[in-house]
Amino acid sequence: MSDVPTITGATRLFAIVGDPILQVRSPQVYTQAFAQRGIDALMIPAHAKPERFEQTIAGLMALGNLDGLLVTAPYKVAMLKFADTVGSRGQRVGAVNALRRMADGRWHADMFDGEGFVSALQKRGVPLRSARVLMFGCGGAGAAIAVSLADAGVAGIHFVDPNHAQAAPRVQALGAACPSCRMTLGPAGTDGIDIVINASTVGMRSGDGLPAPLDDLSSSVAVGDVVLSAGFTPLIAFAQSRGCPSVTGVDMHAGQTEALLAFLLEANAAQTR
Amino acid sequence: MSDVPTITGATRLFAIVGDPILQVRSPQVYTQAFAQRGIDALMIPAHAKPERFEQTIAGLMALGNLDGLLVTAPYKVAMLKFADTVGSRGQRVGAVNALRRMADGRWHADMFDGEGFVSALQKRGVPLRSARVLMFGCGGAGAAIAVSLADAGVAGIHFVDPNHAQAAPRVQALGAACPSCRMTLGPAGTDGIDIVINASTVGMRSGDGLPAPLDDLSSSVAVGDVVLSAGFTPLIAFAQSRGCPSVTGVDMHAGQTEALLAFLLEANAAQTR
Repeated sequence: MSDVPTITGATRLFAIVGDPILQVRSPQVYTQAFAQRGIDALMIPAHAKPERFEQTIAGLMALGNLDGLLVTAPYKVAMLKFADTVGSRGQRVGAVNALRRMADGRWHADMFDGEGFVSALQKRGVPLRSARVLMFGCGGAGAAIAVSLADAGVAGIHFVDPNHAQAAPRVQALGAACPSCRMTLGPAGTDGIDIVINASTVGMRSGDGLPAPLDDLSSSVAVGDVVLSAGFTPLIAFAQSRGCPSVTGVDMHAGQTEALLAFLLEANAAQTR
Repeated sequence: MSDVPTITGATRLFAIVGDPILQVRSPQVYTQAFAQRGIDALMIPAHAKPERFEQTIAGLMALGNLDGLLVTAPYKVAMLKFADTVGSRGQRVGAVNALRRMADGRWHADMFDGEGFVSALQKRGVPLRSARVLMFGCGGAGAAIAVSLADAGVAGIHFVDPNHAQAAPRVQALGAACPSCRMTLGPAGTDGIDIVINASTVGMRSGDGLPAPLDDLSSSVAVGDVVLSAGFTPLIAFAQSRGCPSVTGVDMHAGQTEALLAFLLEANAAQTR
């Protein structure tokens, strides 16, 4: 640590739960954000091993001075059962990435993985109302972004996923949960598309290319990629070469931090008053 | 917090467990000590509520990135059952105030409450070998100090405790556990005494006086008091007026910190290699 933290017996705790945990950046990001707001609280890394997951979470939630949890892989679905109430996005996605202790002691959970992406697109000036979206990947990230995009008013989302058998019931469930947004599954194609989003893992490994050929991509199409990368992912590099507005995994995380802070600190206010 | 801590996913955790927890100073003291040694670790406050004590401790001990626990009231006896192995002092006192995870994953516990006091007496140059001790109070603090004094070679400890029925079996058990040191229980008296120690709560409340009349106290008698006080406790003030060497609750805590750090960081070394 570059600075010596001043922790007291009164310092409140938040924890980010995952396996592995070494890679998470939330402890630094949120602890600094708490300090900037004058809040005496830490975000600690909590390494929950799969074979002791339930015991670990039950113990953390029993701590009298812990006010909230963030959740990363592989526990976003498993964490649902620890929540007393689940927000609308978490219910529709079927997974949560944040829980807070409410004033009455019960735990409320919700999913914010899509909120950062929508916020980043909005900051980039990308119109969302009635937009048509091409989404690569229908896993947890794709589902979370789809629900947030539906809430923001997009007209339709067309999913492309190589695992069609697994994706089909998910897309159907998302469509049923978001009746205002038409959700479809099928081959890639940019015809009539306003926004292209990669919510698959393509681009994580060096040597990866685009999630699909996008030769006819117009410069008016906004492009987003959930993959966190030190440089640009192949998709973002391609979008920039075409002059498309783009949103990166880093932008997505920045947008999510604000939404998560607001969620967690509502709990903090309830606990400390 | 006056400084913004830099916590990462790799930061190791230690926790101090108690109820209440607001008053503990270990988070600040140990987190600073870790940083001074270049160790990326935090001591977090962990508020374990009595009705969820076992669940809380089991969860903390299941965390893959937590390497040790300190224990404060009221859990020093209850924590014994969570240890796989218990050091000699912890066994004889029947309580522990520190646990560390060993390289093989098992948890080792011991009691250090007496070590700080003995270390503080030694730093003050008080001879312990063959010394005769008058000890007020035979609760957890008194028992821990008695065991550490016995290990340091004192010849005898005479306990004074108003709750004779509760104290008698304790003193007997301590005597059996420390055969080299004669442990007795009875009325106060400073005849032949080299060291007077207050391990009772007398002196905690304003208006408290001495634990017993000590009018005939010689200036050669060393005096110690476990009670933590912003100023001097009545006993320490009296000792100083007599010119006696003295050791305060603050000295005791300082001496204990070094011993506890060495104990906890053995665990840290095992985990991070």
